[in-house]
Amino acid sequence: MPSDILFPSDPAQRGLARELYALAADQPIISPHGHVDPAILADDAPFPDPARLLIVPDHYLTRMLLSQGVTPARLGVPTVNGEPVETDGRAIWRTFVDHWHLYRGTPSRLWLERTFETVFGVTTKLRPDTADEVYDAIAAKLAEPAFRPRALFETFNIEVLATTESPLDDLHHHAKLAADGWGGPGGRVITTFRPDNVVDMDWAGWADRVAHLGELTGEDTTTFAGYLAALRQRREAFIAAGATSSDHGHPTARTLNLTPAEAEALLHRGLAGEASPLDAEAFRAHMLVEFARMSIEDGLVLQLHPGSVRNHNAWLHATHGRDVGGDIPHATEYTHALAPLLDAYGNDPRLRVVLFTLDEYTFSRELAPLAGGYAALFLGPPWWFLDSPEAMRRFRESVTETAGFYNTTGFVDDTRAFCSIPVRHDVARRVDAAFLARLVAEDRLPLDEAAETIVDLAYRLPKRIFRLDHTEKETA
Amino acid sequence: MPSDILFPSDPAQRGLARELYALAADQPIISPHGHVDPAILADDAPFPDPARLLIVPDHYLTRMLLSQGVTPARLGVPTVNGEPVETDGRAIWRTFVDHWHLYRGTPSRLWLERTFETVFGVTTKLRPDTADEVYDAIAAKLAEPAFRPRALFETFNIEVLATTESPLDDLHHHAKLAADGWGGPGGRVITTFRPDNVVDMDWAGWADRVAHLGELTGEDTTTFAGYLAALRQRREAFIAAGATSSDHGHPTARTLNLTPAEAEALLHRGLAGEASPLDAEAFRAHMLVEFARMSIEDGLVLQLHPGSVRNHNAWLHATHGRDVGGDIPHATEYTHALAPLLDAYGNDPRLRVVLFTLDEYTFSRELAPLAGGYAALFLGPPWWFLDSPEAMRRFRESVTETAGFYNTTGFVDDTRAFCSIPVRHDVARRVDAAFLARLVAEDRLPLDEAAETIVDLAYRLPKRIFRLDHTEKETA
Amino acid sequence: MPSDILFPSDPAQRGLARELYALAADQPIISPHGHVDPAILADDAPFPDPARLLIVPDHYLTRMLLSQGVTPARLGVPTVNGEPVETDGRAIWRTFVDHWHLYRGTPSRLWLERTFETVFGVTTKLRPDTADEVYDAIAAKLAEPAFRPRALFETFNIEVLATTESPLDDLHHHAKLAADGWGGPGGRVITTFRPDNVVDMDWAGWADRVAHLGELTGEDTTTFAGYLAALRQRREAFIAAGATSSDHGHPTARTLNLTPAEAEALLHRGLAGEASPLDAEAFRAHMLVEFARMSIEDGLVLQLHPGSVRNHNAWLHATHGRDVGGDIPHATEYTHALAPLLDAYGNDPRLRVVLFTLDEYTFSRELAPLAGGYAALFLGPPWWFLDSPEAMRRFRESVTETAGFYNTTGFVDDTRAFCSIPVRHDVARRVDAAFLARLVAEDRLPLDEAAETIVDLAYRLPKRIFRLDHTEKETA
Repeated sequence: MPSDILFPSDPAQRGLARELYALAADQPIISPHGHVDPAILADDAPFPDPARLLIVPDHYLTRMLLSQGVTPARLGVPTVNGEPVETDGRAIWRTFVDHWHLYRGTPSRLWLERTFETVFGVTTKLRPDTADEVYDAIAAKLAEPAFRPRALFETFNIEVLATTESPLDDLHHHAKLAADGWGGPGGRVITTFRPDNVVDMDWAGWADRVAHLGELTGEDTTTFAGYLAALRQRREAFIAAGATSSDHGHPTARTLNLTPAEAEALLHRGLAGEASPLDAEAFRAHMLVEFARMSIEDGLVLQLHPGSVRNHNAWLHATHGRDVGGDIPHATEYTHALAPLLDAYGNDPRLRVVLFTLDEYTFSRELAPLAGGYAALFLGPPWWFLDSPEAMRRFRESVTETAGFYNTTGFVDDTRAFCSIPVRHDVARRVDAAFLARLVAEDRLPLDEAAETIVDLAYRLPKRIFRLDHTEKETA
Repeated sequence: MPSDILFPSDPAQRGLARELYALAADQPIISPHGHVDPAILADDAPFPDPARLLIVPDHYLTRMLLSQGVTPARLGVPTVNGEPVETDGRAIWRTFVDHWHLYRGTPSRLWLERTFETVFGVTTKLRPDTADEVYDAIAAKLAEPAFRPRALFETFNIEVLATTESPLDDLHHHAKLAADGWGGPGGRVITTFRPDNVVDMDWAGWADRVAHLGELTGEDTTTFAGYLAALRQRREAFIAAGATSSDHGHPTARTLNLTPAEAEALLHRGLAGEASPLDAEAFRAHMLVEFARMSIEDGLVLQLHPGSVRNHNAWLHATHGRDVGGDIPHATEYTHALAPLLDAYGNDPRLRVVLFTLDEYTFSRELAPLAGGYAALFLGPPWWFLDSPEAMRRFRESVTETAGFYNTTGFVDDTRAFCSIPVRHDVARRVDAAFLARLVAEDRLPLDEAAETIVDLAYRLPKRIFRLDHTEKETA
Repeated sequence: MPSDILFPSDPAQRGLARELYALAADQPIISPHGHVDPAILADDAPFPDPARLLIVPDHYLTRMLLSQGVTPARLGVPTVNGEPVETDGRAIWRTFVDHWHLYRGTPSRLWLERTFETVFGVTTKLRPDTADEVYDAIAAKLAEPAFRPRALFETFNIEVLATTESPLDDLHHHAKLAADGWGGPGGRVITTFRPDNVVDMDWAGWADRVAHLGELTGEDTTTFAGYLAALRQRREAFIAAGATSSDHGHPTARTLNLTPAEAEALLHRGLAGEASPLDAEAFRAHMLVEFARMSIEDGLVLQLHPGSVRNHNAWLHATHGRDVGGDIPHATEYTHALAPLLDAYGNDPRLRVVLFTLDEYTFSRELAPLAGGYAALFLGPPWWFLDSPEAMRRFRESVTETAGFYNTTGFVDDTRAFCSIPVRHDVARRVDAAFLARLVAEDRLPLDEAAETIVDLAYRLPKRIFRLDHTEKETA
């Protein structure tokens, strides 16, 4: 019997949710935004042990244990300063399972349990006394050929998966994928252009990376024109590796449309090590407008996800580096911040900007009115701290009435955890089915239209909005 | 069988919602805040074609199509710069219906479908292939005498409808209405005093309009005393045309209690074209306190709806002018902003200030605590981007526990769309019935008290709070 | 038959909610944060009349009537300026009951009705015509020995109750309680260290109170070292009176880690009457870091509840003083504000900081990510304007997915109203049961784990997190 997980318990709504979900459940997975390491699919090597696959790299898991006093080192999270960490997969797994109750009510629990069951066929309830049994069962599966990355990719029914790389990446994993018939334009595994590390002056080492960008492209990146030309050249290389979008993670949503001379001056101050924090913010803000201009030329969809204070946990950053659970959201303003970009290109149908947020308290006030009023804007799904059933429900309840369904992109999983991709998409489909079921049950939408909508959300919209349908780009 | 639209599907709650709604459904409509053109009711001419009646003037509809790349010109929205627009009603209608799926889950869809059915008796499902059939059916109705504005007013069971005019308006439509026995104090169609265009220095042409105000009243509006006297004189004229409230749409909720000399200096800088944006903000802020003083004298209820960034979409504003869907909300602060006004008059029962917001993320933090703690404050209903079933539900869930029901005014439709008035009130009554039904179903309120409350919300509260019951004004 | 109040009406969820609630209903009450006057339990004198017990001191009740034009004086709220107030308990009661409908949908109504019924056995429905009957019934009970404070304490099944005192308090009520076997370390009635009035330079009389602190302790509080030593000494006295936590109510969550010289300079400017508002903010911010340091030494849990603009209603403050319903929340920032404290001690398991908020629009954006990422942080329950069923539900829905259940402390009643303690805890237990019931009904949590969780939330977590289990403090 299929699972009713996440469906409302009211019988009328549950029946409708089942019916609608059934239409979405078998749709291929479109994953246009994520952080899977392309080496996994390029090399197609067996996955390591269950702890290294499922726990060590998942900062949703390790930060929760840190919040209860269990250090990341005990969970095997690598250090940047040489402090030793636990290396035994089974020991890590046991420590984790000892604290399994902490995840009650979290999406992490849902994802893990459903991954155990639907990917690995393990239905044993996870408890301290079953920790080894579950570990061994997963480990046994990981040794089978059917659990190699490419085999799982097929099993997962993924149609296209986008990874994310820096402009400094030589894309050799993607070259290997293309050579194997898996990558390149229109391929199954594509890249995404993520230039933050050469745009954000506040990021240590920026000037060196800008110099490296110059070497890689043969452009003089000490001039603004050369810097832009280098970025354009890398975008072309990314497009040749299948990219259909760029991705930009800024502290704020600020945009600025400076003159070339003003931008040049900022670049120079940055390269001279004399940029203030306001300079760095202005440069990032202006570069978003430059990237919008490039998008209009080359067709890459521009994804913007602002609002994370990176490396907020200073000790964690010093000890374990970036992207290990130490980022914290802050309030994010869109209405004034995006005005310069929108004044320039907001009504241009050639441009597609996908907005994300970590601040749900902008859903009805800013994001839905903006997306429902500008041709260039679309709303990405709830992201990161919000990629959970309750937050997804609030997103639909808060944005649909002003922006409708068709200014939203459908789900993106944004994950490093390859094995969790199917269950993450499944959770989103279930939540959308539940939301649509309520609209139908309350006579707010006919069932036939809800049925069309659920398939649009699960498959057609992400494919179309992220230009994965290989249509020609729009003309002005 | 009556419709269950918007009622919860849980059988216990649905039964209670039906019962409560039945008590409100036939209450007369009180519409104390709206933007219907008074000429419609003064002239009582037949409405134009369905597209010009229902689509062209509705910026909820045209902005959604703009967000998907369909220009307002294709929908017949007039331009201010001479660019040609579609003029054929049927062509506009077809373009609109081709994109009907975009409105799934929006209040616009609800309002239109219910208007088709309950006002025009058209139950054909709107689809591209039925577009002409629906158009023709509505057009045929519009030709009948029973669909003239005053006849519809009767059919709609409207007890009183307030329109909104500038102090520079000569109120001749309202004079015609009064002459016909429809207007004037205590009449069925009344006006509202909306002085923004002579208060907001940032609004192009302000100084000319202030001069015009002087000519109209014979006051010297180059002095602050004369400016205030002119406004007082226009308020008296509006009161003679039935007005019981003023209406103020400011970018923020800022209030200031300046000295007369300070206010005079701001006025002079404004008239000399030397006012800074901060001066303009200070002048608006101070004028709210002046209007509160006038309200205490003359009894007009003061409505304040801050938080809209007008003309955010610069291209839309340049091409099609104001009020065509290009406004976007921004974060709005009330606690500190209102303090100067509240320090002066917050506990004065002679004053009634009705607060609106586009920023629902102030409901529980600021608006409910303020309205539940000051005698002068009442909360208007969810407004504009929030005048939708989900937002109305969140409003009740977020403010009732601190402000109760009796510091809220009940529904105002705030609409230009005369034919949508009954269905908008009906939606609000249904949402309130559903909210009260849940309280009853969860043993939080006895049914008899919920029954009294639903009628208060639908009829008695707006009538009383907006002083439409013609009671004497309170004494201090 | 037990009450189903606050349980969802969906039969599946209701059944589960009943089952889960039954496990929590009889757990002893842990009340680690409140404002009951310790004299009540020290003296164990009979309570006064029903109006003086239940209405006059409850600013939730009196502010609602003020918002509808009924002055606090008519309800017997004492004045600070000599204006006369109503003194007849029965007259106060009748005025209150005449406006009973204003409380529909509020927690005040729930608390009062349930208190009448479950504490006083009065089931007569409160209406103007039953006002005297209810009054007399409660008055009769209050005359019985079983309704003395200590007897009620037993009846209420309170295990431990913390009151709140200033460092200037001589704790003589607590000395009496200890002498009677009711107080002291590990006792049933303990104190809490609340130093705001000697920390907040903006609070009139601060310098005099700092001098008084010096006299009380024999320390030279005109030096920063002496000031800190005096505070440390008082903390020791509070710990001897059973305190396990300190409590800090600041306008913002700002923290600062200044040098001793900087802090000394601020203290001197304050004592000289030369501190600016920014100085006062900096001093409060720095003192939070000092108190965190002291907590690491002496083990007191640090409670921080920022975000209230005290005495916002200026007339009310001038007429009736502090804490009578004139405070209003404002937007509160945590991510940047807490960074200095967290940089210093955020990962230190010896420190426990419990965060409260009046700004629910930080739940998912800031509070849950912070509590789910720092070992030192825990989230207190919805507080004050948010201590209501709908807000409690939103709290669980918004924070659980990121912070889990185990970074939240469980309920604190924060009340002055001794007789309302059981019903307030009961409401929280019901709301938690309803939330958990939905998780179970939607297959998101197994029933056995929900059953463990409900007891953790009701009893084990507050006991453990507030160090009421008398365990040794953690080591670094």
